[in-house]
Amino acid sequence: MPHFEHVRHRPPQLLAGPRELVIACAPMKSNINLSHIVRSAGCFGVTRVIGTGAARLEERIARDGADTVKLEVHRSLGPVLDTLRAEGYQLVGLEQTTHSERMFEFQFVAKTALIIGNERLGIEPELLAKLHRVAEIPMYGLPHSLNAATSAAVAMYEYCRQFGAR
Amino acid sequence: MPHFEHVRHRPPQLLAGPRELVIACAPMKSNINLSHIVRSAGCFGVTRVIGTGAARLEERIARDGADTVKLEVHRSLGPVLDTLRAEGYQLVGLEQTTHSERMFEFQFVAKTALIIGNERLGIEPELLAKLHRVAEIPMYGLPHSLNAATSAAVAMYEYCRQFGAR
Repeated sequence: MPHFEHVRHRPPQLLAGPRELVIACAPMKSNINLSHIVRSAGCFGVTRVIGTGAARLEERIARDGADTVKLEVHRSLGPVLDTLRAEGYQLVGLEQTTHSERMFEFQFVAKTALIIGNERLGIEPELLAKLHRVAEIPMYGLPHSLNAATSAAVAMYEYCRQFGAR
Repeated sequence: MPHFEHVRHRPPQLLAGPRELVIACAPMKSNINLSHIVRSAGCFGVTRVIGTGAARLEERIARDGADTVKLEVHRSLGPVLDTLRAEGYQLVGLEQTTHSERMFEFQFVAKTALIIGNERLGIEPELLAKLHRVAEIPMYGLPHSLNAATSAAVAMYEYCRQFGAR
């Protein structure tokens, strides 16, 4: 067996250009969840996270993610989604809905805005109506839904799996 | 565009048999992280999580995951890994090490024990020495390492992506 030794400060993989993935969050119940999303975004090379309402980072959670990720805070998500759409982003909700596509087979386009719903309410119907597609992570048991920040990280991972350092 | 409507209680996908994936955690700094791991394990159909030391579930975090996931608490992880190995599990650490394999190309075997390290210390050297393989999630930016519970969820997702409802 190989001899495994910690690599504590492996340099990150360099991206060929800025990640074309944007994360847009509905007003979250918990700024801890939002801060976890920002930490994960930083790790996956995402530089733009959109928060709504009382969004505020907890630095002990977001860590250095707060240094490289720009958190834009807006009053509500509807107009933001309209702008992103006009800018050419494919609007992809992360939700359990009719007509959703399983994350395992979901083919992202590079220029994607990933929409994260509120922990309790999910993505509200008036926002669902603006989406091009919905991706859903298959569930195999209770509690049948992942934490919002956890599912956002899984979706970012899947995007990076498809696009690597591009 | 399709009309997306919430599906709040989609029945989970039925597994053909019990998941052969076991999660084994070093003593964690935070029972919140451990509880998040149990919640994610429940969602992904994993029924066995091994905790160490002062492991205790916070039910508000673990949710119904605590109903279906058996949390076994042991004094230390070394003897547990020896037993899992003797039972035929492939011992896979989730860590940043020399000789690690990128998670994007990592081929799991069905009977896998996934080892999660402490938030600060990672998987300690005497445990690393017991592992068959190490999987590493590629990082593209600061803070260069995911939260322990987040990375555990990503690894469980990747396992499920490969094995589906098997």
